[in-house]
Formats: sequence, structure tokens, C-alpha cells
Amino acid sequence: MTERVITACVVIIGNEILSGRTQDINLNHIAKQLNEWGIRTTEARVVPDIEDVIVDAVNDARAVFDYVFTTGGIGPTHDDITADCIAKAFGVPLVVSDEIAAVIRRRPAPADIMESRMRMARIPEGATLIDNPTGGPQGFRMDNVFVMAGIPGVMQGMLSTLEGSLQGGAVVRSRSVTAYCGESTIAAGLGEVQDRYPSIDLGSYPFFRNDRYGTTLVIRGTDPRLLDAMLEEVKAVIMAAGEEPVEEQ
Amino acid sequence: MTERVITACVVIIGNEILSGRTQDINLNHIAKQLNEWGIRTTEARVVPDIEDVIVDAVNDARAVFDYVFTTGGIGPTHDDITADCIAKAFGVPLVVSDEIAAVIRRRPAPADIMESRMRMARIPEGATLIDNPTGGPQGFRMDNVFVMAGIPGVMQGMLSTLEGSLQGGAVVRSRSVTAYCGESTIAAGLGEVQDRYPSIDLGSYPFFRNDRYGTTLVIRGTDPRLLDAMLEEVKAVIMAAGEEPVEEQ
Repeated sequence: MTERVITACVVIIGNEILSGRTQDINLNHIAKQLNEWGIRTTEARVVPDIEDVIVDAVNDARAVFDYVFTTGGIGPTHDDITADCIAKAFGVPLVVSDEIAAVIRRRPAPADIMESRMRMARIPEGATLIDNPTGGPQGFRMDNVFVMAGIPGVMQGMLSTLEGSLQGGAVVRSRSVTAYCGESTIAAGLGEVQDRYPSIDLGSYPFFRNDRYGTTLVIRGTDPRLLDAMLEEVKAVIMAAGEEPVEEQ
Repeated sequence: MTERVITACVVIIGNEILSGRTQDINLNHIAKQLNEWGIRTTEARVVPDIEDVIVDAVNDARAVFDYVFTTGGIGPTHDDITADCIAKAFGVPLVVSDEIAAVIRRRPAPADIMESRMRMARIPEGATLIDNPTGGPQGFRMDNVFVMAGIPGVMQGMLSTLEGSLQGGAVVRSRSVTAYCGESTIAAGLGEVQDRYPSIDLGSYPFFRNDRYGTTLVIRGTDPRLLDAMLEEVKAVIMAAGEEPVEEQ
């Protein structure tokens, strides 16, 4: 494959995910959205609110992946340290963004509250802003690192504004078919099909629901003709095992 | 703090999480369960079904954290490569576990299907087994690395069998209180409270629901007296801002 794959790493910042208090749903949303833009989420990390850990995770990721997306830690409280960490990771000072400050000042507040809120106007020197369609303070971009809010609705709004501004490769499409049998019943045949299509990813995802075992075969790749051809072969494997392939939409 | 903190890293193995096809719920379950056992999930990584990436992630994690828990990739199909990766990470060969093979043989099947299923009996030399209460093939433990299934129900069953076999530290407990105001309204006061309790973690988690902004303050630590004392101070900060603290159960 000569096709250039554009990769992304998602860095989820927040003790609340690691303590189990909060179920993360941001990774799933980002992965789906990036996929539509031709960018593959190749890894994700969940890190605590500890400066050194965040700095290292961001520096490791930005060196390896085309894009890095962070969520969380850009609010006004003492545990919101993401801007500080990104500045440290890039070795630049924090500066006050007049543009974010203007957004923050739109909502009047007593001086001490305004001071806390102004924490959110601090960005690393050289960063550009990521719009926030929910009307709150913006996120920011520093080189290939995109820093977004942790609240899902706000993060989703910020991410949506990046449409068209990122370089994507070929979009990965998928085909799915389910077999209501144990994975092992079709495992050998699937392995042979996978070997014939090295550029296409064939995943087998077993499940147990409504008292039935089954497995969903997901075919992922960029060439629709290959996807369709592989799908037919996978269905043939399922039928050869005496099962009925159930196509998903 | 002289208290020894026992740490864990969760390594989630699977393209389906990174493609956005599947919403991971295993990290959340593992984090909550380990917390009950006095073990803190300090980091998590989501990695694709690529051997080198899995091997590196496991080797990095097992050197740094007390425990490593992996989910996914131990089924019978070609994309199930976790056992191979763990063996490679430890530099040992894969061997067939007679005990797992016996479980697999309990369900009769034609020879070719049985052969695929026997893939699940392969474990790194020196590994011990993790029981599987759902009746399927077991997971395994290699040193401080625990290898479990990706299907949530199976993973949860396997994890439950580890109760009592892991070394835990003091159990982290939490107190929560919600303020229906913007975070910035109480940010300064919260920062001061946090400074007074260095051994306790005070997190502020803003939300927007039912048309109201609010933030939940979560106090986490091992000493119940300190938790209760800090909770009173946090409530005082909220009341000083003219808001009513709402305690959560």
C-alpha cells in the first residue's frame, strides 16, 4: 500500500475517568468523526491530572502521530491544568488570549469570579483557537495538538468546527455481517480470507445477546470494491458452516 | 504520605474501540472494581491489534505499574493475538494449557472447528490461569499482567475471580457534592481548600443538564475523617457563593 495513512492519538485527561466515576464517551465520538474525515485513531491514552504524566503523554504522542486530540482539564478550577501542560510540553510560556478573554467577559461576574474564569483564557504562546459553538471559552491548537473540553457536548461542538481544516487520507469504510454461531466455527475460513486481502482489516467481534452467541465480522478498508468482494467471501465462509449470514446496515 | 499506593494500568486491545464501532465499557468497570480492592487505576491505553504496539504497551506498563490488566484479543480468530503478544513481551514460548484445552473439549465440535478453538488454549509458558465463571476458556496471569476477555460479561466474570488474590493498599473513598452554579463562581475557594488537604484529591466536574449548569465536586482519598472535614469546607465555599450544596449519595 502506497496510500498515506493519517493517524491520530486521543489523550483523555481526567482522574474521573480513571476512578470509574465517569464513563468516557469522548473517544468513541472522536474516533467516528475523525474516521469520516479520513483520519485513523490509532491509539488512545487516559491519563490522570498530573502534570508530568500529561506532558510526557502529549510529547510522546505528537512525535509519533499526525494529530493529537486532548479532552478535559481546560476549565477554571485548580485541577484544570491542561493549558499549563501543553505549554510545558512545547517549552513556551502561557499567554492570555484577548479573544478568549473577550468571550469570558461577555458574561458579567464579580471580580473574584471573573479572575477564576480568566484561567480559561490562558493558552500556550503561538496557539490558535478552536471555536466553541456552545458559546463558552474556546479550545486551542498548538502545532498538531488540539486541546478540547471534557464535557461531551462542548467537545463535540469544538471538534465539529475543525471540519475541512485537517488533512485526511482515504476514508475507511466498513461492511458488517453477523453469524449466529461461535467464532471458532468460522475461524479457519476467516483467517484464509484475511490472508487474501492484506490491505483490508477483518475483525471478528463475538457477543452474547438474547441468549444467543454470535459474532459480527467487520471488514474495514478504503477500497469499496475490495470491501464488497471480501464481504462475499466472508458470507460464503458463514454459509459453508451451515449458518445464515445476517447483513447489518 | 508514607502510605504505599498500589497502581494499575489497563490496556484495552482492539481495533473496534479505536474505530469507534464499539463503546468501551471495560475500563470503567475495572477501575471501579480495583478501587474497591485498594488498587488505583493510574493510566489506561487503547491499542490496535498490532503485535509490536501491544508488546511495547504491555512492557512499558508492567515496568511502571504494580498491575496491568488487558482486555480483548483472546478468542479463536486470526485477529486474536494477545496471547502471542504477551509471550513475546516476556520472551517465552507459547504452550498449550491442558486445563484450558479440557474446558474447550467439553463442547464437542468437528475437528477443524476444534482446531480453531484450541487457539484459546495457548498461553505463555509460566502463566497461571484466571477462572472464567461463564464456562468458557480461562484467561491467564503472567507475573503482574492479567489477560482477560474483551466481551464485558466474560471480562467481569474473570475479574471477579481475582478478589482476594491481589495486594491492595488503602481503599480510596469519595464524597460528592453538587453546586448548581458555574465552576468559576467557586473556583478560588476550592483551590484554597485543595491546598489545605494535600493528601486528598478535590475534582470539579462541570455539567450541563436539564437546562442548568452545575459542577460536582468529588473528594477522593483514603482517610474518612479528612474526607468529611474537606466536604464541610467545600460546602462552606458553595454556601459562601450564595448557592445551596446538594449532597450526592
